[in-house]
Amino acid sequence: MVAHRAYGRGILSSFFSDLLGTLFDRNLLRSSGDDGRAIEAICAELISVHGEVTGVKDATAVLSRYHGMNEAEKTAFFDYLTEMLDVDSDAIAAAVEAYREEPDRANYSKLMQVSEPLRQELLRRLNQVPGATAALVQMRVDLLRMLKDKPEYGRTDADFRHMFGSWFNRGFLVMRRISWETPANILEKIIQYEAVHAINDWDDLRGRMQPSDRRCYAFFHPVMPEEPLIFVEVALTRGIPNSIQMILKDKREVLAPHQANTAVFYSISNCQTGLKGISFGNSLIKQVAADLAAEMPQLKSFVTLSPVPGFGRWLESVSEDEAIGRIANAILKRSRQDLMDGVDAEEIRMLVARYLVEEKRKDGLPLDPVARFHLGNGAQLFDIHARADVSAKGVATARGAMVNYLYDLGEVAENHEAFVNEKKIVASKPVRQLVRALGKRGRELKSENA
Amino acid sequence: MVAHRAYGRGILSSFFSDLLGTLFDRNLLRSSGDDGRAIEAICAELISVHGEVTGVKDATAVLSRYHGMNEAEKTAFFDYLTEMLDVDSDAIAAAVEAYREEPDRANYSKLMQVSEPLRQELLRRLNQVPGATAALVQMRVDLLRMLKDKPEYGRTDADFRHMFGSWFNRGFLVMRRISWETPANILEKIIQYEAVHAINDWDDLRGRMQPSDRRCYAFFHPVMPEEPLIFVEVALTRGIPNSIQMILKDKREVLAPHQANTAVFYSISNCQTGLKGISFGNSLIKQVAADLAAEMPQLKSFVTLSPVPGFGRWLESVSEDEAIGRIANAILKRSRQDLMDGVDAEEIRMLVARYLVEEKRKDGLPLDPVARFHLGNGAQLFDIHARADVSAKGVATARGAMVNYLYDLGEVAENHEAFVNEKKIVASKPVRQLVRALGKRGRELKSENA
Amino acid sequence: MVAHRAYGRGILSSFFSDLLGTLFDRNLLRSSGDDGRAIEAICAELISVHGEVTGVKDATAVLSRYHGMNEAEKTAFFDYLTEMLDVDSDAIAAAVEAYREEPDRANYSKLMQVSEPLRQELLRRLNQVPGATAALVQMRVDLLRMLKDKPEYGRTDADFRHMFGSWFNRGFLVMRRISWETPANILEKIIQYEAVHAINDWDDLRGRMQPSDRRCYAFFHPVMPEEPLIFVEVALTRGIPNSIQMILKDKREVLAPHQANTAVFYSISNCQTGLKGISFGNSLIKQVAADLAAEMPQLKSFVTLSPVPGFGRWLESVSEDEAIGRIANAILKRSRQDLMDGVDAEEIRMLVARYLVEEKRKDGLPLDPVARFHLGNGAQLFDIHARADVSAKGVATARGAMVNYLYDLGEVAENHEAFVNEKKIVASKPVRQLVRALGKRGRELKSENA
Amino acid sequence: MVAHRAYGRGILSSFFSDLLGTLFDRNLLRSSGDDGRAIEAICAELISVHGEVTGVKDATAVLSRYHGMNEAEKTAFFDYLTEMLDVDSDAIAAAVEAYREEPDRANYSKLMQVSEPLRQELLRRLNQVPGATAALVQMRVDLLRMLKDKPEYGRTDADFRHMFGSWFNRGFLVMRRISWETPANILEKIIQYEAVHAINDWDDLRGRMQPSDRRCYAFFHPVMPEEPLIFVEVALTRGIPNSIQMILKDKREVLAPHQANTAVFYSISNCQTGLKGISFGNSLIKQVAADLAAEMPQLKSFVTLSPVPGFGRWLESVSEDEAIGRIANAILKRSRQDLMDGVDAEEIRMLVARYLVEEKRKDGLPLDPVARFHLGNGAQLFDIHARADVSAKGVATARGAMVNYLYDLGEVAENHEAFVNEKKIVASKPVRQLVRALGKRGRELKSENA
Repeated sequence: MVAHRAYGRGILSSFFSDLLGTLFDRNLLRSSGDDGRAIEAICAELISVHGEVTGVKDATAVLSRYHGMNEAEKTAFFDYLTEMLDVDSDAIAAAVEAYREEPDRANYSKLMQVSEPLRQELLRRLNQVPGATAALVQMRVDLLRMLKDKPEYGRTDADFRHMFGSWFNRGFLVMRRISWETPANILEKIIQYEAVHAINDWDDLRGRMQPSDRRCYAFFHPVMPEEPLIFVEVALTRGIPNSIQMILKDKREVLAPHQANTAVFYSISNCQTGLKGISFGNSLIKQVAADLAAEMPQLKSFVTLSPVPGFGRWLESVSEDEAIGRIANAILKRSRQDLMDGVDAEEIRMLVARYLVEEKRKDGLPLDPVARFHLGNGAQLFDIHARADVSAKGVATARGAMVNYLYDLGEVAENHEAFVNEKKIVASKPVRQLVRALGKRGRELKSENA
Repeated sequence: MVAHRAYGRGILSSFFSDLLGTLFDRNLLRSSGDDGRAIEAICAELISVHGEVTGVKDATAVLSRYHGMNEAEKTAFFDYLTEMLDVDSDAIAAAVEAYREEPDRANYSKLMQVSEPLRQELLRRLNQVPGATAALVQMRVDLLRMLKDKPEYGRTDADFRHMFGSWFNRGFLVMRRISWETPANILEKIIQYEAVHAINDWDDLRGRMQPSDRRCYAFFHPVMPEEPLIFVEVALTRGIPNSIQMILKDKREVLAPHQANTAVFYSISNCQTGLKGISFGNSLIKQVAADLAAEMPQLKSFVTLSPVPGFGRWLESVSEDEAIGRIANAILKRSRQDLMDGVDAEEIRMLVARYLVEEKRKDGLPLDPVARFHLGNGAQLFDIHARADVSAKGVATARGAMVNYLYDLGEVAENHEAFVNEKKIVASKPVRQLVRALGKRGRELKSENA
Repeated sequence: MVAHRAYGRGILSSFFSDLLGTLFDRNLLRSSGDDGRAIEAICAELISVHGEVTGVKDATAVLSRYHGMNEAEKTAFFDYLTEMLDVDSDAIAAAVEAYREEPDRANYSKLMQVSEPLRQELLRRLNQVPGATAALVQMRVDLLRMLKDKPEYGRTDADFRHMFGSWFNRGFLVMRRISWETPANILEKIIQYEAVHAINDWDDLRGRMQPSDRRCYAFFHPVMPEEPLIFVEVALTRGIPNSIQMILKDKREVLAPHQANTAVFYSISNCQTGLKGISFGNSLIKQVAADLAAEMPQLKSFVTLSPVPGFGRWLESVSEDEAIGRIANAILKRSRQDLMDGVDAEEIRMLVARYLVEEKRKDGLPLDPVARFHLGNGAQLFDIHARADVSAKGVATARGAMVNYLYDLGEVAENHEAFVNEKKIVASKPVRQLVRALGKRGRELKSENA
Repeated sequence: MVAHRAYGRGILSSFFSDLLGTLFDRNLLRSSGDDGRAIEAICAELISVHGEVTGVKDATAVLSRYHGMNEAEKTAFFDYLTEMLDVDSDAIAAAVEAYREEPDRANYSKLMQVSEPLRQELLRRLNQVPGATAALVQMRVDLLRMLKDKPEYGRTDADFRHMFGSWFNRGFLVMRRISWETPANILEKIIQYEAVHAINDWDDLRGRMQPSDRRCYAFFHPVMPEEPLIFVEVALTRGIPNSIQMILKDKREVLAPHQANTAVFYSISNCQTGLKGISFGNSLIKQVAADLAAEMPQLKSFVTLSPVPGFGRWLESVSEDEAIGRIANAILKRSRQDLMDGVDAEEIRMLVARYLVEEKRKDGLPLDPVARFHLGNGAQLFDIHARADVSAKGVATARGAMVNYLYDLGEVAENHEAFVNEKKIVASKPVRQLVRALGKRGRELKSENA
């Protein structure tokens, strides 16, 4: 039976619906006129003492002006931000000296003030008109693109990132379920942003949103309500699946939620290039896991079904290896059909285990970026499957292999700590056995070679 | 006829209603257990590399622990924040030196990092659990109270203020109308927070919320949906009112909105002590004025009916003045009944004009705080009324006088600029005449005295 | 942890919010002009073939016209409804004859058509403009008032009642919790409509709405969203309370909901005179009981704390009774203070038991209306308390007595059936013992008298 | 600038969102157990005196039972409704006699009671559980299908229709805009229910929902929030369009709404077979027109672009006609390409004019059903276009012709009245000229033939 909500919640609901009018207006930025002032002049006024009073007009003008700029004009604008609104080293040096001598509030405030570049204040003052936050996130997309040719923009980018880190603080994000009852304009973005297993069309999308054993969750920010920041697709299953084909196949028996014992995170995609470097994935996975656990207490396992994006490249790099080169070479030569048929399946599993457990970057962390993400979150490397993603992409990047990382909410803190402090990779017994088996095989091959 | 909303708006509405669950939970902070660790140890972990992964638990623990602290424990906690999480002057000095030599991204980032105190990162990481923002605002209420005895906390307070300035950026605030259809728990806070003309009871409140010629608007932040940040009460009138009694009287003829030609801001109250120093009033008044102008194009004037809180005190200070002391003294001796009857009305007006236009602080700005606020916003000092607030408080603080400041949206930018740059007080002709008239009278009296 | 809602629910939420614009408009009915036609002429057009096309204008005109009528005009209008829009007996007689001979669709439809009075079609056609339903409910309030002097209006009233029964069908009603977070304009109506234990002021109201061990629920209809139809106030308690003073006292310890084992329905009030004869109470109580049981599985008992409105009058009527007259007389003479002190408490309990269990109307049902209601719903007469309502009203009507009726959801169907079929009153053992004890005492007294 | 809504509207919004829980539950009907009783027995109990108290359980049981029935069982159930729950002619005859003698309330109520078949009360009592209304609408879909073989079900169907007419009264319907921001599950139904110009896929749908010069509106009922009852698609244009190709073409310049001067209703579709005979189209068109006029005062014309579904058939029927047979024959022989090229365009226009203006049914109303609908609503036959719908369907049914009906809100009442009372077809001057031109041509041809 339904628990009835008090009026109060509704209030809040309604309260937030007003954000529509005040926080979010897609058209505003296009409508502002041009009063002939240079954008730099407007920026200068905006960060001056007048900025608090005349700010809305100026902020609108800057964002509107930027919206209409070509590449050269944008470059000039970012040059301005980078060079003219930088910190003043001398001022900082003087302020820190003063603070060292007399650490009172005045000196502290002065130090804080001069050590924050004007760019940051500019961002805050721009962000007072409806739609500004989204426009600034979009501005950073441009900035990141130009960064390759203009490394000095790195300083400006650092300020965008810092400011966004504060604005997109976890406490301000909202998790929402995405379903077949979600508005089409949002669903369209899910199609567009899906980065792991492409969604072909609306039927494919419906297949991932509508059945009772499929879920999708996203983070949103109140000022960008039509823009998911990150989303994760979940399958409710009996047992841990060993291939993405099982999850995505067209005709399959749909499970009633109460029959499921496992929640599989089979795709997680960041949506906003402009929020690069601000990490949402760890929070999202854990929030979804916690919520699903509360809703369906019968769920026993929370696992991913993850790609191994660096495996193919690594495999090529070891093709000359004395011990395992021959195995690697054999696998590299297999056709897609061979891989679908399961040829060399065990060898692939062993090599993936080796790749994930033993291959490291200079900093001692795993070579594979997906492994770094999940292990860094405190997950366990749980299982490895061959012929698990036999799409063209899956074969090209990982010879069809996929991996289950297990999120045991009772162990993530400990795993994470071991990973960070000791670079320890927590792997299940079967995975460790795969590594050992490969070692043994490698030694045999090596001695054969010798 | 009603314009029908598309489903999309509803979606967003619903979208925000989920904030309830995720952003806002009053009870969470009380429910967390105590695992025996010192709060400083938890804070240290929270700002360490583990903070991003284990953060929710730690943040909840810190806030929950703080919630139960006594004054001594809070002092110890703020001591910790102030002394242990301060910036490292040597590190800044070194970083600024490195940056001066090689201003690349790495050195820039290093400089930014060391010049931001750990306190700020701690605040961001605390702010990842539902209800944290409100709890941190409340924490600053404690801090501000202790600040008197512990001036060194000023550094910590500066960081709270800086962080709140970013979080409560205008772009994240929502303006909502408050009316008789607003939930009782919010209305109760309006009663509680009203700081200018006290609301006696629910009938008094209804009289300010329900009639068609009364409005009330407030700013809210999405994560504190039950807490107004600031609110303004508005009366729609024909003509500019010359007393608060006209506005607040019990039995009065209610105007249909289309009959009104004037919007009177007769009370504006900040609600959150913990957000001291973050200014919302200017934005709120202008947003309300702009919205009312769009809704009711027949409105011709947007004025305040404002108190003159410093007038009484100033009057006493000039009682010995050669020129105007005699007038001041006479006024100071009038009974409340005299003032109600209009005795010395013109003299009061002249003295208020003089007080507001000519009496300055050391920095050249007006002595009167309300004048500083409205003139700084770009309003004009428009008119002055005697026997305009004959409540005990109105008589005690300002001998019954009140003031209209006029917000002409076409002139506020210019007025503001003149005020900031030249300390110029923009006053209407009648007000300037009052000043001159007093000057003349003063000279006469002085010569009489002589 | 919060279960996150899909967008879809939000949609629906938003969907319904549009009802505001289209279903509900308080001002519409006042705004319609007068085109000089007699209201009867407009009604005639409205129920003619043109009614479907020109209906909105006509319906608005009729309701607007009615809104401005004085008593005499309303009488003329109801005369018209009663006499001119009645069924045509001859037509029915002819149609039933035709149908008897040839029971096909055409004859059936003809019979249905002529046996429905035009009044009903008029009501349906009036009900196509925003606010019409509420206006028609209000129209019936007038009708019911006039009915006393104009019994012939009973026919018209029967049609209103029939139509409202269809429109306010349980399937169209919505149960909502009322709380301290409910809008003030709705709460104000709770104060106004409370019919059992008057709510003195907003503090009294807050005491019934805000504490965690108090609940209030109401039924609403989508087209009258600001008008509760019926509401019930609930106290969550440990054990079954034996007085209303315990429930309503000012200073009391508030229970956390999980500590409660009993839900007490201590006040239930119908709100709409115009919906007289359409019963909502049974549905509301059972829905609330079912929902509370789902939300708080630890609740063991669902009981009322009910008045005994007819007890005082009955007591007077038996004051001459040979057996119990002396006891009745003694009780009738007790002062309010005596009753508060518990004088004759057991005698009162016995007499109330006798009154409720044995005193019947001609149709064999209990004399007491509250008993008829709860027993008819399938509740059990569970316990009887003296000095349970020592307010002036409680003493005057029932010498301070109150009753617990127990709703055991597993037994209500059976109890109800026994009550309806056999007029059996299901009473607990203690209550039956009270009856027997009185019988014994009565026999003793009678023999004494003899 | 945004007009800010008071909290109150939000409340109501939230209020209605609770309908979700209480009014609408798709799963309920499947979950009810089977207690072995025959459905007829449950129905009998439901309409007995116990129905009001035990009704929820019984109603759920009946609907759940019905949900699982096969065709034969459904037939048995409808037989029961038709034969066992019919009116009792003798009782009506007796009651009407009594009422004729003594027309008091008692006799009136008795008459009303016996002349309403028990089926209607059954429907009302079934309609007390969430989802019941939709289930009953679906039940009528079955009934209508069986009606062909079982004409006696017509009586039962008449009762469904009567009850639905009361429940789906205009006053209870809500108009909602459908847009690209509408949930996918609702949009999917728009694709499915579109009956005039088929929507091929989601891209086609987006092209009708998303552009700023396209609108779609639907009626909903609060208890069936996921089911549109009827919807209309609107194009905002400059000038009145003369072909559907202009409206639906893929690449076209999108108009800003303020540039449009015409609103074109180019498709209107009923969605619910089970609501056959209950007319929503007239209300919807007028509400949309009124709302668009309020939102965009620059709109000058509200016209349809409508099919002429009966034209092709009629054309064949006159192929032997002395006067116009030769023209008709020529047109009938044209290929689709010819029609697309505009061959015989003027002849087609003349014949359509003749068909619409002069060809009548026995009752004197136009032969063409779309003409009957719009002219009956009070629209004017405004213009006729050849090669206006050159889809296969458009060519097959109407040789590519389409028609504009003009809704002039100031004239619809008068036009409607003339249409109903005098069967007068209000046509524009150009259309009347087409009729005359054809008459002239016909006379010429006839004399040639002679």
